[in-house]
Amino acid sequence: MEHSEPFLLINFKTYLEATGKRAVELSKRIEKVSEEHGVRVGVAPQFCDIERVAASVDIPVFAQHIDSMPAGASTGHVLAESVKAAGADGTLINHSERPLRLADIDMAVQLAKQTGLRSVVCAGTARLSAAVSLSEPDMVAIEPPELIGTGRAVSKENPEIVTDSVKRVHRVNPAVRILCGAGISTGDDVYAALKLGTDGILVASGIVKAADPEQVLSSFCEAVLRVE
Amino acid sequence: MEHSEPFLLINFKTYLEATGKRAVELSKRIEKVSEEHGVRVGVAPQFCDIERVAASVDIPVFAQHIDSMPAGASTGHVLAESVKAAGADGTLINHSERPLRLADIDMAVQLAKQTGLRSVVCAGTARLSAAVSLSEPDMVAIEPPELIGTGRAVSKENPEIVTDSVKRVHRVNPAVRILCGAGISTGDDVYAALKLGTDGILVASGIVKAADPEQVLSSFCEAVLRVE
Amino acid sequence: MEHSEPFLLINFKTYLEATGKRAVELSKRIEKVSEEHGVRVGVAPQFCDIERVAASVDIPVFAQHIDSMPAGASTGHVLAESVKAAGADGTLINHSERPLRLADIDMAVQLAKQTGLRSVVCAGTARLSAAVSLSEPDMVAIEPPELIGTGRAVSKENPEIVTDSVKRVHRVNPAVRILCGAGISTGDDVYAALKLGTDGILVASGIVKAADPEQVLSSFCEAVLRVE
Amino acid sequence: MEHSEPFLLINFKTYLEATGKRAVELSKRIEKVSEEHGVRVGVAPQFCDIERVAASVDIPVFAQHIDSMPAGASTGHVLAESVKAAGADGTLINHSERPLRLADIDMAVQLAKQTGLRSVVCAGTARLSAAVSLSEPDMVAIEPPELIGTGRAVSKENPEIVTDSVKRVHRVNPAVRILCGAGISTGDDVYAALKLGTDGILVASGIVKAADPEQVLSSFCEAVLRVE
Repeated sequence: MEHSEPFLLINFKTYLEATGKRAVELSKRIEKVSEEHGVRVGVAPQFCDIERVAASVDIPVFAQHIDSMPAGASTGHVLAESVKAAGADGTLINHSERPLRLADIDMAVQLAKQTGLRSVVCAGTARLSAAVSLSEPDMVAIEPPELIGTGRAVSKENPEIVTDSVKRVHRVNPAVRILCGAGISTGDDVYAALKLGTDGILVASGIVKAADPEQVLSSFCEAVLRVE
Repeated sequence: MEHSEPFLLINFKTYLEATGKRAVELSKRIEKVSEEHGVRVGVAPQFCDIERVAASVDIPVFAQHIDSMPAGASTGHVLAESVKAAGADGTLINHSERPLRLADIDMAVQLAKQTGLRSVVCAGTARLSAAVSLSEPDMVAIEPPELIGTGRAVSKENPEIVTDSVKRVHRVNPAVRILCGAGISTGDDVYAALKLGTDGILVASGIVKAADPEQVLSSFCEAVLRVE
Repeated sequence: MEHSEPFLLINFKTYLEATGKRAVELSKRIEKVSEEHGVRVGVAPQFCDIERVAASVDIPVFAQHIDSMPAGASTGHVLAESVKAAGADGTLINHSERPLRLADIDMAVQLAKQTGLRSVVCAGTARLSAAVSLSEPDMVAIEPPELIGTGRAVSKENPEIVTDSVKRVHRVNPAVRILCGAGISTGDDVYAALKLGTDGILVASGIVKAADPEQVLSSFCEAVLRVE
Repeated sequence: MEHSEPFLLINFKTYLEATGKRAVELSKRIEKVSEEHGVRVGVAPQFCDIERVAASVDIPVFAQHIDSMPAGASTGHVLAESVKAAGADGTLINHSERPLRLADIDMAVQLAKQTGLRSVVCAGTARLSAAVSLSEPDMVAIEPPELIGTGRAVSKENPEIVTDSVKRVHRVNPAVRILCGAGISTGDDVYAALKLGTDGILVASGIVKAADPEQVLSSFCEAVLRVE
């Protein structure tokens, strides 16, 4: 993944439309659209699906979360090494639906680094985007929780939070790439996000719950190409 | 799995010795010993390993945890359907290293039932074993947290807690099978557990961290056969 | 507090109407109504208000929660001894707005006993009411979370959950007294609750947010006297 | 409290030596030493003791924690308004024994500001000290968790973490005052802390569990005066 290239990351959440075999099928369709347009697109399936998705497609695969603990006597937790061994390239950290304590965000980013996983740390405000950037993740995803799943795109509803995040994050750490998310559902939303200075988007229901995910993703990819 | 048959369940925790390909290898060795002795043995690998383990062996595969939430807009959680789709037969619930709120234990058991997963709910005392039995799980595992990982077996160190659990659980729900765990490391520990009225054991480091897991598991299986 | 006597417990939650001096004033008005009718009424103010409320009135004062930990190096937690030293007579445990892990509910009940605090453990279903009764609290409060704060009383909307709780709790522990709560706002709701076999009610907004708390509480007390 | 003046903050944790009446007595002894030396010292008693401590002494009183929620239908939580109404001047936030999610730290600082409470946000590393400073608390307390309660003072065992915190915090927000804590037990530890550029210390067992708290606190105050 070239660092200068925009990146669209699709979070499968625990949607049944993207669970088990359907996670593999959806990932293949996403890979096809990604290749057709030459736009970088990644997927974040559920833990149990990471391995079969990673074995089926050649696009970046992310976990939705890792636990901030080393290997050992921990039951029911998600080890960075386990996610990596299953074929993941990276992981989301601190999604608003899986919020972490401050010290755990920092530790998760370090565990990701040590394991060779890219990290995308989510934050709900511009200030918190800057705070998590101090841990030097690969990417920050600014997602105002109140817009998630609404279809009202952050890049249009609240462009200030996006530009403010870009400014604040780059002030503390210019190497961090910035995604934005929440409510993204059209190519125009993606275009607006990139124009605001982000490096891509984080999207879930906008693709996973779409009547025609390929068509919507195609419009997203076209928006990326329009910007470039 | 016959309900009257003893059951040995091996929790892989997040041990590196049982992560990724090593989870598959260990499961195959466990399957071999299980078949040689005709004793029922199950494994509980990490989430990311469930699918490849389930695809590689023909013994019961359990998740280490499921989240108490339905499918939908939840990131980084473990859906019962996802675990099932990966090939799991059941799941641990409320392990002392992944303790749940009371209402969530009950909901997790119901979600397991609805999804066709067997449930093994862990509890640390005889009283709590009875409390969780009211939710009608398939099995209860009594594990005093202070003995977990010590090599001092609950069935020898604290036989009263085991017999007391058996009595109390059966008083509230005679259909619930009872495992015991914590510190189990020898065939004698297993023999003692079964003699106390349990239906099997839950073990982790005793097998996973053993210099020769097959040899230790063989001694466990021989203890089962001695009882029968 | 006679064990056979009905008990009305008023949870002040974090309502500003019942914070600081207003907690003391409301408690005094509640005490007055309680004395006028000869009906036992208790209050559960916020932690910081327990001492001044307990010093101002001669009715039972409950904490809204205690933490399941012994005295020592814990910052920001609520010690049973601290609550007791401030003058509390008892404590709520596991309210649906402060849910606890199963093992912590049990430990909190034991800590309350050791400290000389009465315990009222909340549960959202009949099955969970029975489960928590195994820990031998003084009282169980059955409160279906979906009715809390609605003004639709559990004793009228879902009488089956109340009678089922009474039956199940008494089956596992006949000594446990049973309150019911959620949506209680009229004397008729209280009357219905007692007629279903409960020993009283747990109420919050029905009194605290009432235009005239004394008038509403009077109607509750009259309902108690009608039953007796 | 003058902003340029050093500040010693004594956390009572849930030590029985500092619970109930003993919290008041200890606070009075602390006030006496504070006045004798003309050094600013504050106390952080348990929630239930805030009011009587604040009513008994004329030194800054802090809560040990506030919850990140507005007033309303929340049971068992600690409202900023409640702490303020009891007479507190400020609050600790995110102590390592009461760690918070990132977004909740930020919200707690804003709630403290709105309520007129000073905020001291704890952090375990220099990087996290800087991260929490972005929320613009009044003070940050750098406390490496591994040294808490050890008697090995952070200011001597790990002076780099202190100087690094001072540098990083001031880079993002020069207005934030910096305390350091963990293992502080002698006047020399305090002297070292101030010489490293901090504005004071956060201490618990070093005073509360001391055979002679007044004598130890006197040595702390003398260290402050030596620096000035």
